[in-house]
Amino acid sequence: MIVLSKEQIEKMVDPDQMMDQIEEAYRIYGSGEFYMPPRPTVEHENKQLMYMPCYTKDIIGTKILSIFPENSKLGLPSIDGIVLLNDYTTGAPLAVMDGQSVTAWRTGAVGGVGIRHLSRKDCHTVGIIGAGMQGFHQAVYACAARDIHTVYVFNHSDRDLTDYLERLKKAIDKEDVKVVQCKAVEELVRNSDIICTTTPSTTPVLPDDKELLRGKCIIAIGSYMPEMREIPDAVLDLVDNVYIELPYACEESGDLSQPLASGKLTKDRVKLMHEYLVSGEKEIKEGQTTYFKSVGMGLFDVCIAQKLYEVAKEK
Amino acid sequence: MIVLSKEQIEKMVDPDQMMDQIEEAYRIYGSGEFYMPPRPTVEHENKQLMYMPCYTKDIIGTKILSIFPENSKLGLPSIDGIVLLNDYTTGAPLAVMDGQSVTAWRTGAVGGVGIRHLSRKDCHTVGIIGAGMQGFHQAVYACAARDIHTVYVFNHSDRDLTDYLERLKKAIDKEDVKVVQCKAVEELVRNSDIICTTTPSTTPVLPDDKELLRGKCIIAIGSYMPEMREIPDAVLDLVDNVYIELPYACEESGDLSQPLASGKLTKDRVKLMHEYLVSGEKEIKEGQTTYFKSVGMGLFDVCIAQKLYEVAKEK
Repeated sequence: MIVLSKEQIEKMVDPDQMMDQIEEAYRIYGSGEFYMPPRPTVEHENKQLMYMPCYTKDIIGTKILSIFPENSKLGLPSIDGIVLLNDYTTGAPLAVMDGQSVTAWRTGAVGGVGIRHLSRKDCHTVGIIGAGMQGFHQAVYACAARDIHTVYVFNHSDRDLTDYLERLKKAIDKEDVKVVQCKAVEELVRNSDIICTTTPSTTPVLPDDKELLRGKCIIAIGSYMPEMREIPDAVLDLVDNVYIELPYACEESGDLSQPLASGKLTKDRVKLMHEYLVSGEKEIKEGQTTYFKSVGMGLFDVCIAQKLYEVAKEK
Repeated sequence: MIVLSKEQIEKMVDPDQMMDQIEEAYRIYGSGEFYMPPRPTVEHENKQLMYMPCYTKDIIGTKILSIFPENSKLGLPSIDGIVLLNDYTTGAPLAVMDGQSVTAWRTGAVGGVGIRHLSRKDCHTVGIIGAGMQGFHQAVYACAARDIHTVYVFNHSDRDLTDYLERLKKAIDKEDVKVVQCKAVEELVRNSDIICTTTPSTTPVLPDDKELLRGKCIIAIGSYMPEMREIPDAVLDLVDNVYIELPYACEESGDLSQPLASGKLTKDRVKLMHEYLVSGEKEIKEGQTTYFKSVGMGLFDVCIAQKLYEVAKEK
């Protein structure tokens, strides 16, 4: 059995390879050749375990999360876990890997694929809202997907970001990329061709201003519960369609469920990414606003974990 | 995170320590200070994953089994898996260990505790019915629990046991212990003070003969489904009580459900082992027949895995 720690995964990850693998996962999703049952959970004294199984034709994976809300009091992330891979034919355990790391790199890769297909090829700036783990990885993938010269970062708290920005600069690993903190979100939006929102906010983190948002590629990662909302209504006035991974996102994410309830968004404008990918390459035009909303799915975790396992096995 | 392979567990295991830990698990079971919810399972194309969570006051464990019946066609065990331990306070993954190995050593230890408390101190012989993984471990534990000079092994198939017997002799690791194959089950029963049945049989594997079975300590491990049966009615004529781990066993095991249905056994004669253990040491008399029936439970897996984790951490 192969065991991969956070540090080992970090050393192995090739963002382009991870994005290719997410595109492969979309292909599998479109083919229907997978089985992703409801996620069993158990809970005792506010300590939840969640088992997220997914079968593909090649492999079986389970992400096992511990969800401990009281960890925030200890200054620890409330979600931790592992990903387990089992052999498709025999069920034998093949690999166990750090779950936080798989989640971060897969979520980043999903956003990265959004950038690959929904941003202009000549985008050179990206703005990250929310200086956390997800924001960090979105920035790394944005720099892999496009020829970025400046990463702007905005965080809602007054936390000192010096160390965060330095680590991010190092992870991007390209000499000519600048990493710059913005004091105001308007400044970030004005300067960024691509905007990634990665917060647990319950009110929009972008200004509700059509003129400011026009022509941007917006990648929204944060909202994964109906009460969470990052994206203002103005975005829905600008875009033709919202691209998502799977229909269930319309119930899960407030960025979709709230405007669907209010009528600001209609179901016919919500499009599935895997269908967009097979419909052939489309050019994103100057001034065209695009919007991808991600909530993630177990199939992505399994496909990313499988690729990491294959890379580790080769070495 | 600590990772323990089968080989590492084998090197670490001290049978006495494991049996002490099972007694500690019985104490926890009696105290009620644990949470063992129903086991979620998912299945796709006859490939089942079963998640067996259990919370104690100290730790959280999940045994994750892959149950692939078609493995038998490949000559592989149909059940494989891992045990995952999470920190009780933070949920952080602490350890992952080989599930087959934890299961084998815990089941052996449960049988061993049965031998400790339900066999005469002067037992010197043990008979193992079923030359498989479970039989192997029952023999090892029997030799730790009592001063055994001969282990008898009977297997229903004609498989050559030379290698098995040699490995068993080596695992017991006591020069003066002989390991002997029996050609007939009657020969094994006649010669053995303690008898461990470890088969998936659907018909009794012991002769239905009171005179042959009188005075034996019987440890039945095999039957874990209603259609499975190892123990003949004669045993129920000889014993006062049947000792079990948890009430659910009466439904799960044919060794209990079948005689309960026929009236051969009544509920008042089915006793819980943890209550027997706290009721004080009782001497088993010459000629007294005793009977322990095990089906296992997640709490045992977690407690054994916890002990292995603690031992590994010390090293």
